[in-house]
Amino acid sequence: MKKRPKKNKKTSETDADWIGASLEKTMPGLEMCRLCHMGAGRGRKCLLPSQKAVAEVLDGLIGVLFPGCHGICPLEFGRSRSALRDQLRQVALTLEQQVAQALRYQCQVDNCDNCEDCAERARQAVRHVIDSLSAVQHTLQLDIRAAYEGDPAARSPMEIVLSYPCLQAIAAYRLAHLLYEKEVPLIPRVMTELAHSRTGIDIHPGAKIGPGFFIDHGTGVVIGETCVIGRNVKLYQGVTLGALSFPKDEHGHPIKGIQRHPRVGDNVTIYAEATILGGDTHIGDGAEIGGNVWLTHSVPPNSKVYNVQPDLKVKKGRGKSPP
Amino acid sequence: MKKRPKKNKKTSETDADWIGASLEKTMPGLEMCRLCHMGAGRGRKCLLPSQKAVAEVLDGLIGVLFPGCHGICPLEFGRSRSALRDQLRQVALTLEQQVAQALRYQCQVDNCDNCEDCAERARQAVRHVIDSLSAVQHTLQLDIRAAYEGDPAARSPMEIVLSYPCLQAIAAYRLAHLLYEKEVPLIPRVMTELAHSRTGIDIHPGAKIGPGFFIDHGTGVVIGETCVIGRNVKLYQGVTLGALSFPKDEHGHPIKGIQRHPRVGDNVTIYAEATILGGDTHIGDGAEIGGNVWLTHSVPPNSKVYNVQPDLKVKKGRGKSPP
Amino acid sequence: MKKRPKKNKKTSETDADWIGASLEKTMPGLEMCRLCHMGAGRGRKCLLPSQKAVAEVLDGLIGVLFPGCHGICPLEFGRSRSALRDQLRQVALTLEQQVAQALRYQCQVDNCDNCEDCAERARQAVRHVIDSLSAVQHTLQLDIRAAYEGDPAARSPMEIVLSYPCLQAIAAYRLAHLLYEKEVPLIPRVMTELAHSRTGIDIHPGAKIGPGFFIDHGTGVVIGETCVIGRNVKLYQGVTLGALSFPKDEHGHPIKGIQRHPRVGDNVTIYAEATILGGDTHIGDGAEIGGNVWLTHSVPPNSKVYNVQPDLKVKKGRGKSPP
Repeated sequence: MKKRPKKNKKTSETDADWIGASLEKTMPGLEMCRLCHMGAGRGRKCLLPSQKAVAEVLDGLIGVLFPGCHGICPLEFGRSRSALRDQLRQVALTLEQQVAQALRYQCQVDNCDNCEDCAERARQAVRHVIDSLSAVQHTLQLDIRAAYEGDPAARSPMEIVLSYPCLQAIAAYRLAHLLYEKEVPLIPRVMTELAHSRTGIDIHPGAKIGPGFFIDHGTGVVIGETCVIGRNVKLYQGVTLGALSFPKDEHGHPIKGIQRHPRVGDNVTIYAEATILGGDTHIGDGAEIGGNVWLTHSVPPNSKVYNVQPDLKVKKGRGKSPP
Repeated sequence: MKKRPKKNKKTSETDADWIGASLEKTMPGLEMCRLCHMGAGRGRKCLLPSQKAVAEVLDGLIGVLFPGCHGICPLEFGRSRSALRDQLRQVALTLEQQVAQALRYQCQVDNCDNCEDCAERARQAVRHVIDSLSAVQHTLQLDIRAAYEGDPAARSPMEIVLSYPCLQAIAAYRLAHLLYEKEVPLIPRVMTELAHSRTGIDIHPGAKIGPGFFIDHGTGVVIGETCVIGRNVKLYQGVTLGALSFPKDEHGHPIKGIQRHPRVGDNVTIYAEATILGGDTHIGDGAEIGGNVWLTHSVPPNSKVYNVQPDLKVKKGRGKSPP
Repeated sequence: MKKRPKKNKKTSETDADWIGASLEKTMPGLEMCRLCHMGAGRGRKCLLPSQKAVAEVLDGLIGVLFPGCHGICPLEFGRSRSALRDQLRQVALTLEQQVAQALRYQCQVDNCDNCEDCAERARQAVRHVIDSLSAVQHTLQLDIRAAYEGDPAARSPMEIVLSYPCLQAIAAYRLAHLLYEKEVPLIPRVMTELAHSRTGIDIHPGAKIGPGFFIDHGTGVVIGETCVIGRNVKLYQGVTLGALSFPKDEHGHPIKGIQRHPRVGDNVTIYAEATILGGDTHIGDGAEIGGNVWLTHSVPPNSKVYNVQPDLKVKKGRGKSPP
């Protein structure tokens, strides 16, 4: 006999019941969201881009860029040129669809009624990506070389490709930047945030970054939208290249298109956890910025900037000192 | 002829052999773990919750909260209300099972012999989640609005939904907090740590956080269990709201239920890498805490707290200054 | 009628056309990469290790180490000893293949022409992993115990296994270190970087770390290749144990095998965001290093090292002070 009279009151609902009753109360509220101006209700005429599809595109492009390395996105060994071409064609078609959806969404937000251009603009953006792939691949090889030469722990260039998070973050950024140049909404940021999630490195697709770029360790790095970074620059974990404050228009909205983030010259090294802020801050070529430095003004080329060693309270313990 | 006499000694074992011999030695030790009080051996009567199942629940709930946005967890476009209801019912049943397993495990740890309540307590917890979904959805929409208005780089509210890590971390926290309120063990923390893994943002499910909460960039943010955060608060990357130290009982165990973490008022902004510690530390409404600030005492409303600009050692290099 | 004469010029290419034309231009450049010395072209005789296969090995080994816990890598409840053995055998075979590929790649990089040893060296490395599994499991149980006792928010040891990122990072490190000891290239780093991606904790496989190791929160922690860390050490988020600078050989390459990173004694606690640098820096047993401390010299046992509280600029606002 399975009756438990003591519990009868509480468990009188059947399995179907208790969930059903809760759902009945909850669904109308959720329904409101379905019909909101951001949702997929009847009032909205287009699909949104999908994170999953964008991730496939990103991984597919990186797979094409490193076709022989079973690294970031391994391809089968010895795939023929035609197999590579087929893969790239497939990726390009998915990207075209996603970009078109992103453009149509932005049209709605901006109350633009000339959506006929979206398909053509999507094609132009994807063509720009494909046409730039060789150049991006060449730049990434310079990035790999910089990492190999910059890290004493690296044993081979392939170790960079197979395991360094910076390569994944930089590759995603360089591809996303191509779409940013064509003013594609949503997709570039989805790409770089995917890399941010995987690596802890947050590079806005709008930044401009020269070749030979290396970030060691990487967790916590933030590079803002209007940063300009030269050639052969090396960052360590936790470096922020950020904004100080930004002028706002009469509605309190930040004015777009203003230089809010620093410019960093060629051959600059910025050590861990340094914070460099402001659109008027220029770091000259060859400069070296020490760990934890907080910098909101420009420094000339070949400068070395370090924190004055802070005073420490040391309460010495008992025990034999280490050798 | 394939014999290599020189190698005979080393490679005399066959493929099956060498692994088998190693396994023979290793298995008894591993067996011990299978039988340990934490393991799944004969001595343990219940299943543990599964990270994978909890991840499915979390993603399923977020998919229901953003049904039209092919964002965090895309649903098929134009799904009917009944499809949404079916999905939510499925998620609820999985959650009920996982919560019951977590409660039964905690019963064993606490040597409680009254496990009959576990099933009913699981139902009550899941009902609380479902009944609260509309309210959570509304709060998340205020969070999205806060992110859109707080970040000059954002072009549309949908950009927040599709790409901002803070939304994923905050949504996971708000759902996990519902289970925490019902004293469900294990599951809430698995949910927020899943979001931590994806975003670098570590919010304990016990924290209390008002609507309109925005975290820019986010990597390295830590928000402790007993934090209380008001409305329209904005954090940047690397902010810690942590504990200073905590009183322990006679066994050296920390006493539970004591306010260990700060309280933060409404409309507060805390810039990157600031550290605010201690259960007696209250940040007044409207305050602004600067980057890298280390704060262990209260500040009144509308205060602005900044580090005195630290002295820098600048060794100016040769070369033309940047303009 | 679907003709849009205005658009004729731009959209005259068919769907197949426009992509095909772009691909025609792009493929030759990409082809170059296929034939580069790092790629899978005809000039290279071996496969590279695959990130995906290494991830399977890592998750498989962790699943074997925690066979009953539906935690990091759940196994089916109640699996028999023979099922466990079968799983471990499968993992070992995959690992053997991956290690052999890594060794052969390194042979090519080093222009070694004695590749016959690679298969035997791979076996020895895998045997070392299997033979050490029990010891690693025991050490990890001490790590779990340290986390449970070190964090007042933890409610049960299983909460550590199911949700704490440090356990995943430390388990990956302890397994990768076994392969590092056998001088296996590539694979150890792929393992720890996989954990870095999931947890934000970056431990080089070369570090030597005693049992009872706990990292709270963890995001941003960096532990360098030549670190030596004692028993029962506790770190918080953002701690760096890094290099100051390192001597280079006549070609400008860093000299390998030099102690570049700190040594940390037993029972040391290092609070959040502290930075400890240099191969000559020894932290004595029982020392306590405060949050944000920047340390480049040794401290004796049982020392307490804290920052002098920095001066703050506080501009007090109007409004009622918090209680």
